[in-house]
Amino acid sequence: MLGYRFHDRRLLERALTHKSASSDNNERLEFLGDAVLGYLVAEMLYSEAEAGEATMTLMRASLVKGDSLAEIAQEIDLGRFIILGQGEKRSGGHKRASILADALEAVLGAVHTDGGIDPARMLVDGLFGERMRELDPDSIKDPKTSLQERLQGKRYGLPQYEVVATAGSEHRRTFTVRCNVAELEVTVEATGQSRRGAEKAAALAMLDRIADRV
Amino acid sequence: MLGYRFHDRRLLERALTHKSASSDNNERLEFLGDAVLGYLVAEMLYSEAEAGEATMTLMRASLVKGDSLAEIAQEIDLGRFIILGQGEKRSGGHKRASILADALEAVLGAVHTDGGIDPARMLVDGLFGERMRELDPDSIKDPKTSLQERLQGKRYGLPQYEVVATAGSEHRRTFTVRCNVAELEVTVEATGQSRRGAEKAAALAMLDRIADRV
Repeated sequence: MLGYRFHDRRLLERALTHKSASSDNNERLEFLGDAVLGYLVAEMLYSEAEAGEATMTLMRASLVKGDSLAEIAQEIDLGRFIILGQGEKRSGGHKRASILADALEAVLGAVHTDGGIDPARMLVDGLFGERMRELDPDSIKDPKTSLQERLQGKRYGLPQYEVVATAGSEHRRTFTVRCNVAELEVTVEATGQSRRGAEKAAALAMLDRIADRV
Repeated sequence: MLGYRFHDRRLLERALTHKSASSDNNERLEFLGDAVLGYLVAEMLYSEAEAGEATMTLMRASLVKGDSLAEIAQEIDLGRFIILGQGEKRSGGHKRASILADALEAVLGAVHTDGGIDPARMLVDGLFGERMRELDPDSIKDPKTSLQERLQGKRYGLPQYEVVATAGSEHRRTFTVRCNVAELEVTVEATGQSRRGAEKAAALAMLDRIADRV
């Protein structure tokens, strides 16, 4: 299903082993796979998207966020191959977004360890290429609008933004903005080199945090 | 000085052009270089460090944080090649940590664009390999201790940690911890899958934020 045949199948097995099942699990491969994915998606955006740095950053965040990874894992039916401990298995761990996303990253790390960056690139292109080309840079240019729309869709109130800290000298100031959605009791903070940039980053972090609920 | 000869020297020039000097600047190359660096350092840690995922994450953060990049840029005297606008030049932009760090990442992105991942890997190994092998995993295992020691060294009070949000169900809870250093008027927040993990991440973020002052 991955379009890749492992030389060392134990790597694939480890990539599919959740920490609830064994101490020989997928956590280190997930660390590697996360970095491989970040790199390959950045490379894809750099060469294919006619977008500036800020937009590419948002596009990448949208492509590699947990929910997107879980969706892709579901598309290739990864859940049924994941090895879980008894407790996780009983509580439906095979369908949990975070477990699916982590396993997908670990599988990518395993492909990289087994075959190097080229098969990893082919896998990422296969799994993410179409999504990337369908991403509308305009639609993700403003996470604040996107957050507001999603909250309104659930009849929640508007998010509140507040500058909670500024640091640095005139030419190198950083702004820390807190974003709060009162009804969901969620607060996040993000830093940027402008108030507006920090607000956008905070909105993006909030979207990621509340993705399951809006 | 990089140990790499560019086929297309315009790439190197663009990598050294700060946005204050031209619209044809290093921002997109910096985006790419940041991802290349994250990947190559992760790969190095994965294959050389006998550490778990959490420790590798902290080690990587320590290696690629802005201050570390600026130090490395200074070691190779990158500042004198950076092309700045008049205002930045007058205000000492050649020595500013953020400008140095961004330029170093952009140069790495340019090497990757010009020659692919292999020369980029050689460059990262040359610039970061020794630092990585000198990193003591034990010393960065506990950023809370490290933060406390650095604050005490300046006779500041202890940092305050507070859980400001929890989210998710029993099996997938996330904790958001706020860390405050009152005398520096700095607050950061970080999220983790345990209270302890979130506190560590917050301490690490605080160390990064106040690095210039402690």
